[in-house]
Amino acid sequence: MNLKIAVLPGDGIGPEVILQAKKALYAIGEVYNHEFVFEEALMGAVAIDKTGNPLPEQTLNLCLNTDAVLLGAIGDPKYDNNPNAKVRPEQGLLKLRKELGLFANIRPIKPYKALIESSPLKREIIEGADFTIFRELTGGAYFGTKTLNEEGTHASDLCEYSEEEITRIAHLAFKSAQKRRKKLTMVDKANVLETSRLWRKVVQKVSEDYPDVKLDFLFVDNAAMQLILNPKQFDVILTENLFGDILSDEASVITGSIGLLPSVSLGEKNALFEPIHGSYPQAKGKNIANPIASILAAALLLEHFGLTKEAHVIYKAIEKAIEYKVVTVDLKPDSKFGTNEVGEFVSNFI
Amino acid sequence: MNLKIAVLPGDGIGPEVILQAKKALYAIGEVYNHEFVFEEALMGAVAIDKTGNPLPEQTLNLCLNTDAVLLGAIGDPKYDNNPNAKVRPEQGLLKLRKELGLFANIRPIKPYKALIESSPLKREIIEGADFTIFRELTGGAYFGTKTLNEEGTHASDLCEYSEEEITRIAHLAFKSAQKRRKKLTMVDKANVLETSRLWRKVVQKVSEDYPDVKLDFLFVDNAAMQLILNPKQFDVILTENLFGDILSDEASVITGSIGLLPSVSLGEKNALFEPIHGSYPQAKGKNIANPIASILAAALLLEHFGLTKEAHVIYKAIEKAIEYKVVTVDLKPDSKFGTNEVGEFVSNFI
Ligand SMILES: CC(C)[C@H](C(=O)O)[C@@H](O)C(=O)O
Ligand SMILES: CC(C)[C@H](C(=O)O)[C@@H](O)C(=O)O
Repeated sequence: MNLKIAVLPGDGIGPEVILQAKKALYAIGEVYNHEFVFEEALMGAVAIDKTGNPLPEQTLNLCLNTDAVLLGAIGDPKYDNNPNAKVRPEQGLLKLRKELGLFANIRPIKPYKALIESSPLKREIIEGADFTIFRELTGGAYFGTKTLNEEGTHASDLCEYSEEEITRIAHLAFKSAQKRRKKLTMVDKANVLETSRLWRKVVQKVSEDYPDVKLDFLFVDNAAMQLILNPKQFDVILTENLFGDILSDEASVITGSIGLLPSVSLGEKNALFEPIHGSYPQAKGKNIANPIASILAAALLLEHFGLTKEAHVIYKAIEKAIEYKVVTVDLKPDSKFGTNEVGEFVSNFI
Repeated sequence: MNLKIAVLPGDGIGPEVILQAKKALYAIGEVYNHEFVFEEALMGAVAIDKTGNPLPEQTLNLCLNTDAVLLGAIGDPKYDNNPNAKVRPEQGLLKLRKELGLFANIRPIKPYKALIESSPLKREIIEGADFTIFRELTGGAYFGTKTLNEEGTHASDLCEYSEEEITRIAHLAFKSAQKRRKKLTMVDKANVLETSRLWRKVVQKVSEDYPDVKLDFLFVDNAAMQLILNPKQFDVILTENLFGDILSDEASVITGSIGLLPSVSLGEKNALFEPIHGSYPQAKGKNIANPIASILAAALLLEHFGLTKEAHVIYKAIEKAIEYKVVTVDLKPDSKFGTNEVGEFVSNFI
């Protein structure tokens, strides 16, 4: 197979971890006779520094014209504590999601056997947990009109949703539930928000097409609690953009480290693969960042193009790295291995 | 002391648990010579059933003219799954918060020694955790304009905040931090939301009045993760309405049961005390609901009026109940004690 992949290393530890993902893909390409062509481009704080624009035109064009996008991480603290910054790295990511129409972000959550002890949760709580979060990614408060009055004393964010936006991701989520344990939990705040009530209504309607899937509803406050009390109750979780942002980071504790979780964002035509962790600027250049989430993002990319066997070789390699404790310090505080070594281990295993 | 207390038992298990809180207050009154006069009124689904209005005029007037409000719980599933219901129990609660000007909801989080094992989190993660969440309660998406178009295919919720709304709760939170470990963590989504950037700016400004308090910032997705990974890092958490709703329910897992957590909501003139759990309709009338959060809400009420000694007697009584395992099934699955027995134990101990 021939794939052209846009690579956006981004900020902080992004470039280091993405390098390992590329190494894994190269190795897969050699062994299984695929050609992966990588084209790098700027996005995020690095793009602002070099061009003034967090998503340069060139980057966007590249992404629109490749088979897939592989993203590192975005964000720099110099923008976070400056409420007056007019241009911010995250704008690049949000614009990319919007322009590529990546309306569904999908995050699988499942603890690794060998890492069960490194979760803050007790073994009996997480052992056997296995669910997927479907987060709507191009709507809600992320993209609604924002205002700040002239005096800078009053601000607003508008959260909006349409039936169409809800319907398309709901179908994806129900289809996924059909292939899994046939349970879908819609998370919202329908006792307070109008948009949540629309979600409930539309999802109920979509559910009629999937009579074999059991649908239930949880308020987001309760869901945030249930994720920790009893994560095994979940199969597929469906929710809006901001709730999905919060819940999927929270759910990462189940796996023992956010450094282990990849996600895929899907649109009608495009697909973007990334680790769910942030740019972790404190670790930049120190060879301590966990590359596993990025390598797993590459594996999700392979699966997306039907290269299931190849993806599984990567999963296997990562399981071995974990088993042999070739892992970074987030998983083993006294580990002697760094980003590079973990990446090398994985690509050598392939 | 003479106190006139409006009692709103509300829905589901509300009446059962509130009864135990009243018993505890009666006992305190007798032993320490205070007169507590309770006046009951309707709010929530019960109020809709009887009057068509989730917060009848009479209830509101009563609350405006008493020293404090003691609330059970609000909510009924028959409204939750009916996106077309025009009147909902929660509207009563939200209106009450608004009319009483209860802008700050304060939820202390601290595990009970005797219950450490009943948390889904490992002992070493939660032992020693002790923090308080300050949640803004009368602003944000809860109270902004809501729209639904005529065809019912497009909905919106507006999240708004003003400098003034942020300033007043920020002062409360900083003052509390000064009396504690002098650390305040502001939780927001300033990389995406305009209201969050306003929060950050205003809180930074207010912080200048409290140079002894260390201020830091966390994005809400990261905060949802950090609460579980390392809750001991927190002292005072300050956040807006919806984030506070999610995080404080999530944080309840640290204490082992949401049935143990009370909260106080403060305004300039009024104060409302309640358990943080919901109406738990499945348990209604079964004598299995945990009354401890409600009894603790009563203790917070006493503290609020300077009756510290009396409040501590209640804390002691509850510790004993937990120590002797006179607790409901949420804390001890094979427990033979119910709501009533736990309440009796506590009031007899006083
Ligand atoms: C960086 C930020 C804008 C982004 C988001 O909130 O969507 C991130 O947290 C994520 O989840 O991908
Ligand atoms: C019942 C509901 C409207 C309420 C809220 O969201 O504020 C509840 O969850 C709470 O936290 O008091």
